[in-house]
Amino acid sequence: MKFLQVDTIEKAREKLLNAGQSLVATEKIALAEAYGRVLSQDVFADENLPLFRRSTVDGYAVVAKDTGAAGEALPTFLKIVGAVEMGQPAQMAIKSGECVEMPTGGMLPEGADAVAMVEFCEVFGADEVAIYKSVGTGGGVVQIGDDMKAGQLLVSKGKELTPQDIGALAVAGVEMVEVFAPLKVAFISTGDELITPHHAPLEIGKIRETNGITLSALAAKHGYHVAHTAVVQDDEDKIKEAVLQAMETCQIVAVSGGSSQGKKDMTADILDELSDGGVFTHGIAIKPGKPTILGFDKGTKTLMVGLPGHPISAMAVFELLFGWLIRKITHQPEPFAIPAALTANVPASEGKLTFYPCKLTLENNQYTATPIYSKSGLIAALTVADGYFLINRDNEGLKSGEAVMVHLF
Amino acid sequence: MKFLQVDTIEKAREKLLNAGQSLVATEKIALAEAYGRVLSQDVFADENLPLFRRSTVDGYAVVAKDTGAAGEALPTFLKIVGAVEMGQPAQMAIKSGECVEMPTGGMLPEGADAVAMVEFCEVFGADEVAIYKSVGTGGGVVQIGDDMKAGQLLVSKGKELTPQDIGALAVAGVEMVEVFAPLKVAFISTGDELITPHHAPLEIGKIRETNGITLSALAAKHGYHVAHTAVVQDDEDKIKEAVLQAMETCQIVAVSGGSSQGKKDMTADILDELSDGGVFTHGIAIKPGKPTILGFDKGTKTLMVGLPGHPISAMAVFELLFGWLIRKITHQPEPFAIPAALTANVPASEGKLTFYPCKLTLENNQYTATPIYSKSGLIAALTVADGYFLINRDNEGLKSGEAVMVHLF
Repeated sequence: MKFLQVDTIEKAREKLLNAGQSLVATEKIALAEAYGRVLSQDVFADENLPLFRRSTVDGYAVVAKDTGAAGEALPTFLKIVGAVEMGQPAQMAIKSGECVEMPTGGMLPEGADAVAMVEFCEVFGADEVAIYKSVGTGGGVVQIGDDMKAGQLLVSKGKELTPQDIGALAVAGVEMVEVFAPLKVAFISTGDELITPHHAPLEIGKIRETNGITLSALAAKHGYHVAHTAVVQDDEDKIKEAVLQAMETCQIVAVSGGSSQGKKDMTADILDELSDGGVFTHGIAIKPGKPTILGFDKGTKTLMVGLPGHPISAMAVFELLFGWLIRKITHQPEPFAIPAALTANVPASEGKLTFYPCKLTLENNQYTATPIYSKSGLIAALTVADGYFLINRDNEGLKSGEAVMVHLF
Repeated sequence: MKFLQVDTIEKAREKLLNAGQSLVATEKIALAEAYGRVLSQDVFADENLPLFRRSTVDGYAVVAKDTGAAGEALPTFLKIVGAVEMGQPAQMAIKSGECVEMPTGGMLPEGADAVAMVEFCEVFGADEVAIYKSVGTGGGVVQIGDDMKAGQLLVSKGKELTPQDIGALAVAGVEMVEVFAPLKVAFISTGDELITPHHAPLEIGKIRETNGITLSALAAKHGYHVAHTAVVQDDEDKIKEAVLQAMETCQIVAVSGGSSQGKKDMTADILDELSDGGVFTHGIAIKPGKPTILGFDKGTKTLMVGLPGHPISAMAVFELLFGWLIRKITHQPEPFAIPAALTANVPASEGKLTFYPCKLTLENNQYTATPIYSKSGLIAALTVADGYFLINRDNEGLKSGEAVMVHLF
């Protein structure tokens, strides 16, 4: 067995980011298609909005100080000199003693500085209104630029666009946005024991291939575009052919399978041989997920990845490395995690970062996290997991009741 | 002004669910397309998996008790009687004193009940191996049915499928799943003041239409399919025509706009007139979002909705009513919320459920929530909101430092 240096997670991430930086690309898309996409440049407002002083209530545009003494017993009487139409400029102007009928959303006429709510107004005759409640300057009015000011940063680079971001950009008149283009990923599953669903029923000695479909879902969650999947036998030439084919279209080529030492060595050798620059990480101090291989082909700018064969291990590695990578190269913050108290003692692996799936339970507005143990290679137990927590390599384990941060799946 | 009964949120939800129940539909889709979709029926395993006893390590399949005395100083010697091939049935059987070479993932031969790890084995000559560490019964082995047992519930109805759910279903040989079909929604924005992006630049008195694009993103977040959007002027006949057209293809028709009382009344009248069964909710005791109208047309089975014109109000109503509705009718649990401590006092509206957008900040593994205030009709301030919290109608407000549960946007 070859003696191979195992990287810490920090070291492996540093190398991965170094190589992954060069893969970033952006594209321009319609704002209407941009929900959930990540902005690749800051967007600024280029005008003051609203563009005009807008009423927030139905009522009468007034000179606020005219209403200073208005009360239920002694209203202020004002002369109605016109009515503002929705969507039209207010053509008139008012002076002290006058008012104009206003719809919610209408434009304030010149001279007015407040809107008295219709609920506190009573019309007398053809052109007089009694105001029963005083209104302060600016009352019932949104001022020019109250929503956004020309030059103001509206949404930052690295923001995954929410509905309200899209709303604010639409208000500002933005029709197209520049976002990060999804990186193209290939998943190649290897193994003589693998059968694909259309080869069912299962025979003794075989297992159904699952890494391709599972990792594709996980990759989609992180915004990757899975452009290619393949299942190949444990044959060096066939694996090489599959990797070379995937390198033609994808920026990340991940080969999974190979939990036995011979297969791991073969995968590492193939990825090393096919990449100009070669394999830079031969293992990572994480559990599960130690037998992970990372390399980079400078020629085609392709990240070359060997993932463990066990589905949970492969998922943990993808989550911890490629979930992280995409956030880094697209300037996204780390997602929110949920503070929770452990319901059981959990041992950790000396010298390794440990990844623990867990189930969350809410009681009295506090969460508890129940660790889920699953034997190597099994996945059904994971269907009840809501997320995972991590134990640092310098920690010997955690006690029941201790606080963890749970990252949601 | 008509006197209209205002529903509590609970009452409005009860009526909405009553009508909304009848809209549920399901569809069968490929497992590979099912990430993020919601199962509409329980899925059970129909066989024991693994189907055979599988090695979790590279090494030698042994009779465990043979190795009971093995140690570094005094190994146990066993005769190698064969080698198991990956993906092939183990054709041989062993008896005490014998062993078989095993790859990780290989099938255990009859007679063997453990696998000794290769790291603790040394081969002598052609067919003998020294075992330097004892292994217990079942060591290095995944038993038949350890992952899943025939008849076991794998994933429940109402589960939004995660990558690991998809993995477990793939292991079980599931190729198609039955999921809830997305409900089709139409958003009709009304207002003489509205201009659509392709009519830019903005004129005095006008505002850009944003509810359609903002609510479409929010609806997509909740798994709705937005099949139709339209912007129409404040004209009764035009609005009726737009609603009738949307009713032909959509199960939820939402008309937004109309913050002035006259327009609200007109929207309510139109929805009432066009629905067999009529409007059942004329307002909800929530802030923002009071001027919300709900009705149901029994003929076409269409939910008829009048949303407030202000974008934040419309979003709050959609989130609190239709985010909730889709979870109820598809049997989904409520999503995880984040416990946080308020950074400021917040007033509440007497008698109304209050919806507060807020920003989350993480410090020492604890979150604080900073309420975001935004004047009626403005949206840019909301771009920094991470989620929202609610204050019950019987609560007069919350003090700085009090705990809230923050629902993520």
